[in-house]
Amino acid sequence: MTSQELFENIKKKESFLCVGLDTDVNKIPHFLLETTDPIFAFNKEIIDATQEYTVAYKPNLAFYESMGVAGWNSLEKTVNYIRYNYPDIFIIADAKRGDIGNTSNMYAKAFFDAMDFDSVTVAPYMGEDSVKPFMTYVDKWVILLALTSNKGAADFQYMTENDEKLFEKVIKTSKEWGTEENLMYVVGATKAEKLKEIRSIIPNHFLLVPGVGAQGGSLQEVAENGLNDKCGLLVNSSRGIIYKSAEKDFAEQAGIAAKEVQQEMSALLKAKGLL
Amino acid sequence: MTSQELFENIKKKESFLCVGLDTDVNKIPHFLLETTDPIFAFNKEIIDATQEYTVAYKPNLAFYESMGVAGWNSLEKTVNYIRYNYPDIFIIADAKRGDIGNTSNMYAKAFFDAMDFDSVTVAPYMGEDSVKPFMTYVDKWVILLALTSNKGAADFQYMTENDEKLFEKVIKTSKEWGTEENLMYVVGATKAEKLKEIRSIIPNHFLLVPGVGAQGGSLQEVAENGLNDKCGLLVNSSRGIIYKSAEKDFAEQAGIAAKEVQQEMSALLKAKGLL
Repeated sequence: MTSQELFENIKKKESFLCVGLDTDVNKIPHFLLETTDPIFAFNKEIIDATQEYTVAYKPNLAFYESMGVAGWNSLEKTVNYIRYNYPDIFIIADAKRGDIGNTSNMYAKAFFDAMDFDSVTVAPYMGEDSVKPFMTYVDKWVILLALTSNKGAADFQYMTENDEKLFEKVIKTSKEWGTEENLMYVVGATKAEKLKEIRSIIPNHFLLVPGVGAQGGSLQEVAENGLNDKCGLLVNSSRGIIYKSAEKDFAEQAGIAAKEVQQEMSALLKAKGLL
Repeated sequence: MTSQELFENIKKKESFLCVGLDTDVNKIPHFLLETTDPIFAFNKEIIDATQEYTVAYKPNLAFYESMGVAGWNSLEKTVNYIRYNYPDIFIIADAKRGDIGNTSNMYAKAFFDAMDFDSVTVAPYMGEDSVKPFMTYVDKWVILLALTSNKGAADFQYMTENDEKLFEKVIKTSKEWGTEENLMYVVGATKAEKLKEIRSIIPNHFLLVPGVGAQGGSLQEVAENGLNDKCGLLVNSSRGIIYKSAEKDFAEQAGIAAKEVQQEMSALLKAKGLL
């Protein structure tokens, strides 16, 4: 998918919402456990109920891997289901991968060949040759960790050399490895005050912003500091949408929660003059 | 496994070799492709032929994930095969994971509950809460990336603040999160001159050293700078052992290659007075 296609979908749906599929067998409605594939059964219902309000889905790989082979199977079915039924939705493998070149090549194959994800989140610690193999696929994206939403972000990401913090160095260095058409960055919503600063380094790149909702970030602040003239944001919500109810109405309630966020986003896009 | 148990195995086998199972369907002997599970068939033969000379195996997750569900299945079978047949061998999930706390919890579950790995490699970028969930399992280990063997290591790992480089900061900060019984570090063999410096920070921790062989690192240099009084090293070789031959004798040749490394290691252990 190109950035223009993504922006067209954002305008059409008046939304820059990404729904995180952090599907946990201990949190889904009990009656689904009687189905042959509870994880996929849950995802399918959640996707059908929220797709109208979202431009992206982000399965969190850890949740699938924790179920072993069965979980990996649920993941493949989920990606195929989205791709087949809602082909204009952007699919993110939230995998935080990154290894030496020949290994990153294999990870790219896993997410872009064996499965049909549009993008994968990548950790920057190992540098250029760990990131570039993901950029060799046409219309596929790397989403590189820059400033994360968690407490541990403070341990290393703010380390400073010549007035430049590690997360800034990651952004400035890595933007030369790719383009605005194959590289996005993760910037946590809990660091909204840093978004403006990051926008000054990369005015045009898309940013994936986790941390709104359960982690405490504010959508309004994120939009104020992060929106650009092609939107440039995908804001993720996982637990705040998919676990609204553990009863028969779980999908309906997820749809209502997604719609609420979408309406707030619509207003923010209008205020910015993008609709 | 405790560090003492690992050291006992090292003494028994006179080896600190870790064989990397970077099993690539395009590199294994063609006749194996006719079996129902070529990846597992290859691994099984390689393991049987090399187990006498090795104290650890390190499946590289990317290679299995690139095969989708079938690959994940081959991985589970491989781990079970080692655990059942050679229970004193240390098994490393080379996965380079790391995410916010609740997600790292799920990755820990994937490698320590759903599968029976002894350890998992973890990337430090997201800090303490991304690493600690892997440390809550008794006798299981985090192997944290410190200084990697690839070219891209130079991009961020040498960033300097107050005379302290990022990889040093990672080691000094993270060693407070765990103990010598649940935390090892990755230090590339191509950076052997840095090993001495790293040993001064963490004299007692085990180090996992990739990069000997195909990547160009020297075993002798690694041993000189890295051995401590409980060995303290696991040196990995992947391509240099498992792809010695693509014919019927592939396993035998891998065994011969592993034995050569083991004999070199035996001499180094003796020279250090550890045997």
